Amino acid sequence: MTPPEYQIFSLGSNPQLATEIAQILDIELSTIDVKQFADNEIYERIHQTVRGRDVYVIQGITEPVNDNFMKLMIFIDAARRASARTINVVIPYFGYARSDRKARSREPIVARLIANMLESQGVKRVITLDLHADQVQGFFDIPVDHLISMPALGHYFYANQLLGDDLVVVAPDHASVSRARKFAKLLHAEWAVVDHRTEEKVNNKPDSVTGNVKGKRAILLDDIIDTGSSMMVASQALVAAGVTELYAVAPHAVLSDHAVSKLENSAIKRVLVTNSIEVPETKQFNKLTQISVAEPFAEAIKRVAACESIEDILKSPDNLDVKL
Amino acid sequence: MTPPEYQIFSLGSNPQLATEIAQILDIELSTIDVKQFADNEIYERIHQTVRGRDVYVIQGITEPVNDNFMKLMIFIDAARRASARTINVVIPYFGYARSDRKARSREPIVARLIANMLESQGVKRVITLDLHADQVQGFFDIPVDHLISMPALGHYFYANQLLGDDLVVVAPDHASVSRARKFAKLLHAEWAVVDHRTEEKVNNKPDSVTGNVKGKRAILLDDIIDTGSSMMVASQALVAAGVTELYAVAPHAVLSDHAVSKLENSAIKRVLVTNSIEVPETKQFNKLTQISVAEPFAEAIKRVAACESIEDILKSPDNLDVKL
Amino acid sequence: MTPPEYQIFSLGSNPQLATEIAQILDIELSTIDVKQFADNEIYERIHQTVRGRDVYVIQGITEPVNDNFMKLMIFIDAARRASARTINVVIPYFGYARSDRKARSREPIVARLIANMLESQGVKRVITLDLHADQVQGFFDIPVDHLISMPALGHYFYANQLLGDDLVVVAPDHASVSRARKFAKLLHAEWAVVDHRTEEKVNNKPDSVTGNVKGKRAILLDDIIDTGSSMMVASQALVAAGVTELYAVAPHAVLSDHAVSKLENSAIKRVLVTNSIEVPETKQFNKLTQISVAEPFAEAIKRVAACESIEDILKSPDNLDVKL
Amino acid sequence: MTPPEYQIFSLGSNPQLATEIAQILDIELSTIDVKQFADNEIYERIHQTVRGRDVYVIQGITEPVNDNFMKLMIFIDAARRASARTINVVIPYFGYARSDRKARSREPIVARLIANMLESQGVKRVITLDLHADQVQGFFDIPVDHLISMPALGHYFYANQLLGDDLVVVAPDHASVSRARKFAKLLHAEWAVVDHRTEEKVNNKPDSVTGNVKGKRAILLDDIIDTGSSMMVASQALVAAGVTELYAVAPHAVLSDHAVSKLENSAIKRVLVTNSIEVPETKQFNKLTQISVAEPFAEAIKRVAACESIEDILKSPDNLDVKL
Amino acid sequence: MTPPEYQIFSLGSNPQLATEIAQILDIELSTIDVKQFADNEIYERIHQTVRGRDVYVIQGITEPVNDNFMKLMIFIDAARRASARTINVVIPYFGYARSDRKARSREPIVARLIANMLESQGVKRVITLDLHADQVQGFFDIPVDHLISMPALGHYFYANQLLGDDLVVVAPDHASVSRARKFAKLLHAEWAVVDHRTEEKVNNKPDSVTGNVKGKRAILLDDIIDTGSSMMVASQALVAAGVTELYAVAPHAVLSDHAVSKLENSAIKRVLVTNSIEVPETKQFNKLTQISVAEPFAEAIKRVAACESIEDILKSPDNLDVKL
Amino acid sequence: MTPPEYQIFSLGSNPQLATEIAQILDIELSTIDVKQFADNEIYERIHQTVRGRDVYVIQGITEPVNDNFMKLMIFIDAARRASARTINVVIPYFGYARSDRKARSREPIVARLIANMLESQGVKRVITLDLHADQVQGFFDIPVDHLISMPALGHYFYANQLLGDDLVVVAPDHASVSRARKFAKLLHAEWAVVDHRTEEKVNNKPDSVTGNVKGKRAILLDDIIDTGSSMMVASQALVAAGVTELYAVAPHAVLSDHAVSKLENSAIKRVLVTNSIEVPETKQFNKLTQISVAEPFAEAIKRVAACESIEDILKSPDNLDVKL
Repeated sequence: MTPPEYQIFSLGSNPQLATEIAQILDIELSTIDVKQFADNEIYERIHQTVRGRDVYVIQGITEPVNDNFMKLMIFIDAARRASARTINVVIPYFGYARSDRKARSREPIVARLIANMLESQGVKRVITLDLHADQVQGFFDIPVDHLISMPALGHYFYANQLLGDDLVVVAPDHASVSRARKFAKLLHAEWAVVDHRTEEKVNNKPDSVTGNVKGKRAILLDDIIDTGSSMMVASQALVAAGVTELYAVAPHAVLSDHAVSKLENSAIKRVLVTNSIEVPETKQFNKLTQISVAEPFAEAIKRVAACESIEDILKSPDNLDVKL
Repeated sequence: MTPPEYQIFSLGSNPQLATEIAQILDIELSTIDVKQFADNEIYERIHQTVRGRDVYVIQGITEPVNDNFMKLMIFIDAARRASARTINVVIPYFGYARSDRKARSREPIVARLIANMLESQGVKRVITLDLHADQVQGFFDIPVDHLISMPALGHYFYANQLLGDDLVVVAPDHASVSRARKFAKLLHAEWAVVDHRTEEKVNNKPDSVTGNVKGKRAILLDDIIDTGSSMMVASQALVAAGVTELYAVAPHAVLSDHAVSKLENSAIKRVLVTNSIEVPETKQFNKLTQISVAEPFAEAIKRVAACESIEDILKSPDNLDVKL
Repeated sequence: MTPPEYQIFSLGSNPQLATEIAQILDIELSTIDVKQFADNEIYERIHQTVRGRDVYVIQGITEPVNDNFMKLMIFIDAARRASARTINVVIPYFGYARSDRKARSREPIVARLIANMLESQGVKRVITLDLHADQVQGFFDIPVDHLISMPALGHYFYANQLLGDDLVVVAPDHASVSRARKFAKLLHAEWAVVDHRTEEKVNNKPDSVTGNVKGKRAILLDDIIDTGSSMMVASQALVAAGVTELYAVAPHAVLSDHAVSKLENSAIKRVLVTNSIEVPETKQFNKLTQISVAEPFAEAIKRVAACESIEDILKSPDNLDVKL
Repeated sequence: MTPPEYQIFSLGSNPQLATEIAQILDIELSTIDVKQFADNEIYERIHQTVRGRDVYVIQGITEPVNDNFMKLMIFIDAARRASARTINVVIPYFGYARSDRKARSREPIVARLIANMLESQGVKRVITLDLHADQVQGFFDIPVDHLISMPALGHYFYANQLLGDDLVVVAPDHASVSRARKFAKLLHAEWAVVDHRTEEKVNNKPDSVTGNVKGKRAILLDDIIDTGSSMMVASQALVAAGVTELYAVAPHAVLSDHAVSKLENSAIKRVLVTNSIEVPETKQFNKLTQISVAEPFAEAIKRVAACESIEDILKSPDNLDVKL
Repeated sequence: MTPPEYQIFSLGSNPQLATEIAQILDIELSTIDVKQFADNEIYERIHQTVRGRDVYVIQGITEPVNDNFMKLMIFIDAARRASARTINVVIPYFGYARSDRKARSREPIVARLIANMLESQGVKRVITLDLHADQVQGFFDIPVDHLISMPALGHYFYANQLLGDDLVVVAPDHASVSRARKFAKLLHAEWAVVDHRTEEKVNNKPDSVTGNVKGKRAILLDDIIDTGSSMMVASQALVAAGVTELYAVAPHAVLSDHAVSKLENSAIKRVLVTNSIEVPETKQFNKLTQISVAEPFAEAIKRVAACESIEDILKSPDNLDVKL
Repeated sequence: MTPPEYQIFSLGSNPQLATEIAQILDIELSTIDVKQFADNEIYERIHQTVRGRDVYVIQGITEPVNDNFMKLMIFIDAARRASARTINVVIPYFGYARSDRKARSREPIVARLIANMLESQGVKRVITLDLHADQVQGFFDIPVDHLISMPALGHYFYANQLLGDDLVVVAPDHASVSRARKFAKLLHAEWAVVDHRTEEKVNNKPDSVTGNVKGKRAILLDDIIDTGSSMMVASQALVAAGVTELYAVAPHAVLSDHAVSKLENSAIKRVLVTNSIEVPETKQFNKLTQISVAEPFAEAIKRVAACESIEDILKSPDNLDVKL
């Protein structure tokens, strides 16, 4: 028996990212039929044998989230029955991750449900990016290789020579401070936080900002841009606090509802996200820059397949060797 | 501790059927928030406590199948975490049931996947109607209370005095003979079968019919009317064979693609289905009659709750005591 | 570590088939003690180490079915505790497969029970032949490599130059049409079906036949010959319909009760079965021909061990490339 | 909902014991079809509903052990699918219990396999009698209500006024001392042990006996009388050591091979066993006395159903309150 | 069968709290032997029957954490084997909860491990207090009734008339803001946050404080007081910022290392904690006030046993009906 | 992918044994942080990648048993999450093994609990030494490689020329005869047994001895020396019976309570144990000799890694080829 090769499948949520990953790995994407019948049910059939192979399947839990998730589950069933040796799911955007606790009685914890469904059908590994909360790793018993996009996002500022003493990374609320602090370290910048007090506010004044931002260029850092509301509120606070230039940065660009028009009409100069979610033509806009995370995903797959540590994928760009 | 009452929830796939079931049982549907966020993710929250209760949740796996199925899974997670004593899922139409075997290498068996996901999250019972193949019961380890709509459908012919010696029940293909035979027995009629040979056919002649149909009124009986094609082909064969009147009968009305126009423009006089699937306004048409299966579902829930046998729900209408 | 070799064990239900398989694979059967104590309990001990090996164990669930099944379960326990890497069970005849659904309330589904017991004790793969219903694959979560004997059985007709325009494959009842249709395609023959209406019959006339059989040589095709009754009833119908010569073909020769005398005294010229079940001396008779399925089983084992697809084992004989 | 009643089933290994148990409990045995088809496969169907009931099924793993065990497994499957609330298995004789460890490499541990199969199919409790080794309880994760027959067996000596200073309980080998010691305590007798050294013996002398037996009446106590060989060897040692009268006592009478003739032709005056195993007509002999254990089994079932402790079923006869 | 009563056990980590809970419920603690042998192994034996009972066992995972946790696991094993109907674990302090994610490669997630071990041995419910992170609920598939001590802690300020406009609740770092905000709402106070920037600090200045604290009485609110260091650093910041009076409040008083002397010698006037952890004599000090959480635990047990919602245990003291 | 190497970790219960094992295997122990925080919680972090490796972790369940066991569980969690291919636990002393059955109602079976916890977290193999009861193997479903120290202990008598016709191996009670018999065979010696009747004894006489010991050198053989009491009682019996010289031999030296002083002040000349448990400085005494079992453990690991049988590790010293 020659050592089994690995195979990569793409189920359609992020075709371009999948293609990039395959190109970097110098491997062809394995082919598969994925279609929906007239009655909306999904059908899949894997073309070539996966017997004894380590299979990597790339599928984000992105809109339409339930269709995309079921495509993943159905693939897992097909691959397991077809004798794949291991099934490794690559989830660039882990939808439902924000449903990670019961905020009120009788709510579900959907992120755990997702984890259970994946695990119970025989998935052996999850490779994902920037989980909303680190604790979601603990929803799994199988290994979760948790990548971060900070090096890729930070590289943008290095490559475009946007560093400098007047740069400050800003958390849009207190809960986001830890993330902002790490990114600031990566960019050798200061950090600040929007002192967000929505609930208590009675007047119409913008939130105040804690930390030194006046006359500075500010990077607002969140993990998901969904409807864009948090970014809006925080950017108003920063403008009021006297920033000179404003970047909005986040790994995941959900861009639901009126997010695009909000961002277009805002004081934000540039919106920097990754391609963890494929932004459709209709949601593209001038201020938007998408950084590819194909490189860290490809590197992770390569190392997993070679039984090597992925620890140093997580370091800063330009070999500054800042451990994140 | 007083003995726990049971509660019924409806998640939105069949609101009318759920309401009817609740009315028959003389119980209010328990209330719940079910919504989809701007980014398409589902959110649910059960309003009143389910602690220690036996919960029955009504949700068909109907279009949009994946959204409806995930609503069910998310409900199960919420109810289990909220300490429901048992979770019983009532699935009037079990979508994906036709994916019950590997017809070719490297295909999934989605019906088993569905069964696994339900069971692994703690469902204690499935109540469903007219499974595409009886073997799907064996995809579960938990009890499946498998109802049939034959008595309800048959009742239509009794109630409208459509019985008689000139009535014949016809299977649209050889694989459907067993079902036709049972329905014929129920109606004290003969049965026939369309000798369907699609694959081998070279000319354009309609299929021939085995059994005596000439000059008779025929009931074409299938289990699902999906795109309507099988019904079309079979009805042409029956017309060619000289039937005088034609009914199309099936428990489940998927009515995808151009089914409605096909049926409207056919020789079929009446299309008789159940309300296992809610037919939207846009798919209603004159020939269509929907028989409610609220009664057998309500009766099944009542008996399950009272620890009584459901065996005799399965007998014929009018107390003819034909065991089906 | 050199790559682990695989090993094949035979537990005694089909010693001759096991020996043939081993010969084709050019491998010695691994040795094991299998005995029953005075009190009827089974004892097994594997002679040589299986540590880290992929183990294939050949054991049909044939008469005495419960002893043979328990021998298999006990082997699995021994092999797992002895650190076998994987345990692959080769079941030439899957007994209890006809118990695949609840025909009436409060019946078991034994085929699923068998599947559960195998899976829960760590079996990693089932290799079997001509399951009574394809859905039984879905009773397993592990891979089922489902072989078919049609190519081997069909080869008999090719090799003995029995093909021709006057050959027709006949299904003994409507439920068997799909199988007959495939075999007819393989032999470039027509197909027909016995219009079996046992329950309704009042007189003593033989069943009629749908399709053109008069003056033709007919192949009656079933999946199991158990008591031989179905074959008898169908052969009488075919004789009455004017066939000139009659073959009874089926993969599995259970031959229980008075099957042998029924077949001997019938109009059937030749009974063609495989050696999926070992026919004891006492049940041998002149008309019986057993085709060996050692070749497809050996080929399947070889490919599974080599991580190759088994898809094209399933094609027709003589390389006609008819996909079955 | 009225509180569910419990039901008792008998699958045929010990019909008389089951009937006695039911009589003591003043309950009718629930009815069930249990048969074997012509091809040897088992078929079962439960007659009345078990929905929501606590089901107790009485079935020893006695000869034919594999058929009897499979009857039990198939019942469990049927009862679980029929919505029994709990399934409690009553196993008067736990066959395969002696396969409780790997004595040599690559042997199975069948008692654990049996435990796994019962548990994995949903059994909620085992009620059994005099396990060969107490550790077999630890093969289960579910509760094992472990009864002992010592009180019933001891009662025979009380009731027949066989007690006295000249009574000694003898273990047939060192491993059985613990059991003999307890029985001696129950009968207020001394104990002794046959110093069994088979393996080392070179001459033909009987084993010697440790403890004072000369001129005494001896009770040889074992847990199973299988082929009768151990009893023979020990009785010869006791005769040589000068005992005046000899009883052979054991809970379980397997009586395989030539056990009956060996015992009949021995110096043993009376063989006292329980009816944990039904002794067929052909194995009955004059010296044999069977004590019924219906009483402790019935009492256990009654208390389990009433949520009461079974601890004091385990005390000595005549209310001597010796804790065993 | 009379409805089973529930029973409460205390394994020794919090004997006083257990006693209080039992008193409020007007029930005797059930008795059990819990001891450690000379070789340090734990032995337990439950005195009275638990058959069919709902068992509640109170055991914090407090120092010595591993002994206390194993006592819990061993109890679970004993209760399950003794046929308890359900086993509900009441964990006033959930040790290891801070190990809730992999902060670095190749670390464990011990909180999930703890959850797995409890669940896999048959625990049916966890009742706990103020988990370090809400996501730990998602480490369980079984229901977690998550109590909070805020109402009890807040009641202290109501009862001692410590409310007022000059009261401010302070989070010791950004990550704690959400908790502070809720407590502030409960006390009708403002909130502030210590802008903790340890890593970046170069000089020796205390942290600054965001929010209005000068001349105010401040309540420093954390979830655990472990070594006391965070409280120290934050209190120095608050003193520097001009607070007039300082309370340290936290649910859980681990008080390891030099925590006691640190707190004694600090500017903090009063340290307010609950009795979720039993503070030994040697760690008692004058400033320490322990609020009992026996009331919410007793109420939760009572409602769980009565199948009632626990939602409104979570409201504010004095019936202010602030939903927390 | 080059074939993955294996790695060995030591968690601190037996550092010296672990070092010896590693030296024999000519491999470096892999490094790991294992520490306890101020609050007593354990923290671990594996230094180098274990991705795709077969990991062997050496950790006895020795005093402090619960800390040592939890260190093992936490390691398993970390290694599994870090993608180890297999986790093999090497447990030189399996603490809690004596809790292998319910001696009384409502006791736990802790050895099974330990087995469950290991298995449920993904352990793939246990390598252990001289289990208290062989049946504990059956508490696991995974392979247990059960080593014995008899060859190593026996070698001491060969190497020190202590064999001879006047040597007798003595079981301290009837239950230990089987072990004594095997060791006697290994040393070509006779065996005897102390006729231990503690419970029945009324006077103060020592136990008598069955078998020929007078004027002989006796080896008292037990499996564990815990408090030393059994050894004391038995040695008094042997002295009274006239032995000339006395050795106490046992694989496991727990030496709890006053064991050391008891043994020092006894008639025993030499106490021979293995290093399965590390005897601390404070418990060392002159009569104590520790035989290393590093060799059989290293050999077992080597063969497991090479997929070779371990059967002949279990043979006698000096190649006498006595199968044990």
